[in-house]
Amino acid sequence: VSGIKKPFTEVIKANIGDAHAMGQRPITFLRQVVALCTYPNLLDSPSFPEDAKKRARRILQGCGGNSLGAYSASQGINCIREDVASYIERRDGGVPADPDNIYLTTGASDGIATILKILVSGGGKSRTGVMIPIPQYPLYSAAISELGAIQVNYYLDEENCWSLDVNELRRSLNEAKAYCHPKVLCIINPGNPTGQVQNRKCIEDVIHFAWEEKLFLLADEVYQDNVYSEGCQFHSFKKILYEMGPEYYNNVELASFHSTSKGYMGECGYRGGYMEVINLHPEMKGQLVKLLSVRICSPVSGQAAMDIVVNPPIPGEESYSQFIKEKESVLNNLAKKAKLTEDMFNKVPGVHCNPLQGAMYAFPRIFIPAKAIEEAKAHKMAPDMLYCMKLLEETGICVVPGSGFGQREGSYHFRMTILPPIEKLKILLEKMKDFHIKFLEKYA
Amino acid sequence: VSGIKKPFTEVIKANIGDAHAMGQRPITFLRQVVALCTYPNLLDSPSFPEDAKKRARRILQGCGGNSLGAYSASQGINCIREDVASYIERRDGGVPADPDNIYLTTGASDGIATILKILVSGGGKSRTGVMIPIPQYPLYSAAISELGAIQVNYYLDEENCWSLDVNELRRSLNEAKAYCHPKVLCIINPGNPTGQVQNRKCIEDVIHFAWEEKLFLLADEVYQDNVYSEGCQFHSFKKILYEMGPEYYNNVELASFHSTSKGYMGECGYRGGYMEVINLHPEMKGQLVKLLSVRICSPVSGQAAMDIVVNPPIPGEESYSQFIKEKESVLNNLAKKAKLTEDMFNKVPGVHCNPLQGAMYAFPRIFIPAKAIEEAKAHKMAPDMLYCMKLLEETGICVVPGSGFGQREGSYHFRMTILPPIEKLKILLEKMKDFHIKFLEKYA
Repeated sequence: VSGIKKPFTEVIKANIGDAHAMGQRPITFLRQVVALCTYPNLLDSPSFPEDAKKRARRILQGCGGNSLGAYSASQGINCIREDVASYIERRDGGVPADPDNIYLTTGASDGIATILKILVSGGGKSRTGVMIPIPQYPLYSAAISELGAIQVNYYLDEENCWSLDVNELRRSLNEAKAYCHPKVLCIINPGNPTGQVQNRKCIEDVIHFAWEEKLFLLADEVYQDNVYSEGCQFHSFKKILYEMGPEYYNNVELASFHSTSKGYMGECGYRGGYMEVINLHPEMKGQLVKLLSVRICSPVSGQAAMDIVVNPPIPGEESYSQFIKEKESVLNNLAKKAKLTEDMFNKVPGVHCNPLQGAMYAFPRIFIPAKAIEEAKAHKMAPDMLYCMKLLEETGICVVPGSGFGQREGSYHFRMTILPPIEKLKILLEKMKDFHIKFLEKYA
Repeated sequence: VSGIKKPFTEVIKANIGDAHAMGQRPITFLRQVVALCTYPNLLDSPSFPEDAKKRARRILQGCGGNSLGAYSASQGINCIREDVASYIERRDGGVPADPDNIYLTTGASDGIATILKILVSGGGKSRTGVMIPIPQYPLYSAAISELGAIQVNYYLDEENCWSLDVNELRRSLNEAKAYCHPKVLCIINPGNPTGQVQNRKCIEDVIHFAWEEKLFLLADEVYQDNVYSEGCQFHSFKKILYEMGPEYYNNVELASFHSTSKGYMGECGYRGGYMEVINLHPEMKGQLVKLLSVRICSPVSGQAAMDIVVNPPIPGEESYSQFIKEKESVLNNLAKKAKLTEDMFNKVPGVHCNPLQGAMYAFPRIFIPAKAIEEAKAHKMAPDMLYCMKLLEETGICVVPGSGFGQREGSYHFRMTILPPIEKLKILLEKMKDFHIKFLEKYA
């Protein structure tokens, strides 16, 4: 706009997990089914595979008037909630899932904000405390502040690959009890922005802690398909909860979230998602349904997209081989880029990057010289904001300062997605390296 | 479920404005464009018309990575906001509309709830008062209560076809000033549930009143295409505001709302909508954008559907004649059903029904005998709730009691959609007549 010449030719938006915007192609099968649902005349077209048609017919049968244009029930289309429940049972090795506990939401964000809304109550010293990891995904801090609840921070351990230590949970909870009533514990696994993947032991500890302290668990598991590191595996909180036995699974209240936006499909624009809520008090459930019904229903085309995420082609079906090829291509690429990013950052002096075990972000720690910190202070700016602004101005690369996610006092980070195509990512990482070295020199 | 035999074979859901669920067919052109956007391979198919392809290409160019799966800007896709602005200018005879004032929303409900959220502030005696018509659409009362604002009722005049009288606005406002700070005036035109269409004089009076009293105007105009009565015409608040001159159009703050869900398209499931907001204070605008960005963006397929509502085929284009045929068929049918419903209800003793000038509901006044009122009180039920429950049990017809919308003390109503196909609607109205007569006899 200003006409001032910049030392770069394009802005690279590595600030937001928006896969398609960075060139990732949609999964063909998912789009075929949604197109068939959108324009059912295509059900007669020989150019669409039978397995896609079968799913489209089933979804349409679940829609009022067989149309994506009808409202669904507030909780979501029945047959899609059934498919979600079957998916969860398969994923969790047979642990039962009840469609009645499934709610289709407008992306995961909507589910998280809605659950928080029914859990938050009270004022003064009995104000509801909501425990969140630091660093966190800013949806949490925004929702907590909007609801007038109290944000209770627990810190992830950067020295140990951003792992969650239950002693830190306990410290955080005990301190919070002095000024609020902590009721909710939020977990992001795989982590955003930190990319750690929690192991079974960690999840068991967290569940035991929630049981002991009667905390409502929110498990944000939208990156459940995005696990890359050797030896890492996604375990759902629901599964581990069941494996811990009836004392736990009959008592611990748990809401877990998934979405069409991440994983290998990256369908952010459809705003599809679901949550599974177990052990919710019937009175709270009534409140939840009432709250959902004010917005009538989540977008039905997003519900359809969610259905394909949980009900993809299976071996023997016509579209299976293409589907698997596309899915694995996306995930293998992300795994390569995760490793590449970690390795490249760790070669830069003054940068430390934990392994990107999962999700789709790097959150490296950066050393910022004292002189740069002074300059930032003079501009009333967080030092990592200054760093990111300079990076943008000099290279066209857009990343988000760590201060937007929270970090330990005196440490500085930024979040960058690994979504650009690999050749572009390499160039981008080279540019960031050069920038960082010059930055260190300039403010030495 | 219970297995008890009911005296009917199907439940007819005349309780919600869900056109496709009641058998209305989608507009072909709209679905063609959305299908093309969903699965762009179809852009090579000879079975899709060129004008649909042209629009799909344009929408996709506005999407990140040319995909409906990318997030859009929080305010919505630029080229769609431009199309909305052009639509408003055409509709309003050339009154300018700025795309920068357009926000694409998740249905109109989302826009209304979001605007109310930024307008409501303060506690105690300075709590924000929001003026709403009685009867009202319950989204308003729910949003107001959720925000902790004060609902300020003004009554529509049932004796005069549910018209809005500015003296009643003044009475309501003056009384409210004693206990809150009224800041917002909500108008629903054409009316839901009342179906009245406001004339130019009425709108001028309302705008003058809002100007005088410095009230923020919310004009819910989602039924702008649903006007049936001879001599009635839709006038947008925006247009009349401009025609009243710069003293008004430079000062009165106005948000107006539209949606894909009603009109002739009835695409409720897509959750598409827009709002146009004028004279919003820049600081408030900043708050609005911040609030919208928490949910990232409205569903992109809903945005695409909204585009076709505001940018349909024009004369000379390939799809024009089919589009007009489909559109007029829906609207002519609704007009017939509006007249039929009014006439049939007014033949029933103890029922009075104002003309259904617009929208898609009848809101007849029903006489409920004293004995029935007593029975309802014994069950701690609103008398019209008892009436609607009995109607459902005996006929399978589902309508909504007037007490859900608000009504003058001692008067009783229900809301019924006119969406069932005409032959079915006739049978339904006959059944309701028989039910009503028997009801009067039973409780005589």
